[in-house]
Amino acid sequence: MSTMEVRYRPIGVIRSPFTDLDDMPIQPTGKGSAAGTVEVDPEFAEGLADLGGFSHLILVYHLHGSSEVRLTVTPFLGSGPHGVFATRAPVRPNPIGISIVRLTGIEDCVLHVGNLDILDGSPVLDIKPYVPEFDAPADTRAGWLESVRGKLGSTKSDGRFHDRRSRDHTGQ
Amino acid sequence: MSTMEVRYRPIGVIRSPFTDLDDMPIQPTGKGSAAGTVEVDPEFAEGLADLGGFSHLILVYHLHGSSEVRLTVTPFLGSGPHGVFATRAPVRPNPIGISIVRLTGIEDCVLHVGNLDILDGSPVLDIKPYVPEFDAPADTRAGWLESVRGKLGSTKSDGRFHDRRSRDHTGQ
Repeated sequence: MSTMEVRYRPIGVIRSPFTDLDDMPIQPTGKGSAAGTVEVDPEFAEGLADLGGFSHLILVYHLHGSSEVRLTVTPFLGSGPHGVFATRAPVRPNPIGISIVRLTGIEDCVLHVGNLDILDGSPVLDIKPYVPEFDAPADTRAGWLESVRGKLGSTKSDGRFHDRRSRDHTGQ
Repeated sequence: MSTMEVRYRPIGVIRSPFTDLDDMPIQPTGKGSAAGTVEVDPEFAEGLADLGGFSHLILVYHLHGSSEVRLTVTPFLGSGPHGVFATRAPVRPNPIGISIVRLTGIEDCVLHVGNLDILDGSPVLDIKPYVPEFDAPADTRAGWLESVRGKLGSTKSDGRFHDRRSRDHTGQ
């Protein structure tokens, strides 16, 4: 299993005002998230049919600037170190980012989204409709983040993942 | 962009009672979803620290049996054909699956999860904590699925993706 490799080819690219890790919102619900677009390769245009009926999308993208892996990280919102899988930090073994974004419009192969927290140029791997029945469980508990949940809307990233060329945003 | 390729190495494997596409729940909230485990490769054990505090996880996995791509699909719950990106069908350009599952326990490198809807043997690419502030937007609208939302809990898959060796579950 561990020697197997999976390969994906990006279906598009994310365009956002964020060209640098500094001053990024750490998640799309954070203050400071911004409008942007998802430019889908025209060869996949047919697959976008009916997407406009959904208010929110799940974007799956490659954290293209993240070249280092760390299994223990100290996230922006944390009081101490945590296992990387208990955080959304970008220095993961497989640097895959997931963001729920609001869809505000579609023009041909360009999706306009309202609350991007993703760095400009991120390769898009998949787009899925957000469906609350599938994606929003009730009765949740958010581990070490419970104590900092009030801060989640206003905390921005700092440079702590910057020195290792992480271009992602999700370093809480 | 379109010639670039990203490569990931699985960090573990999903063990579930579902060894065949037939009679699978179509999403984890569906009736018929079952307990299972995520076996994480021991080399990543350190990264699991503090995961136990979260009630739900986001599993990112490879839809290992999905070899065909279709840009237009007729999902289990749909009244007609839809663009693949407006569905959760497995025949996507990049066959990446995402499921929110309940974490019921951790033993060393084995995560016990309570509502799997994933086929046995699926390679795991990433594990993230589910955080409602990031992952559960308010005021959502579910496109063509709005008219069938009452059925989401009880519909099971049938064989429609079976003939093309799709092993995934998410064919609504």
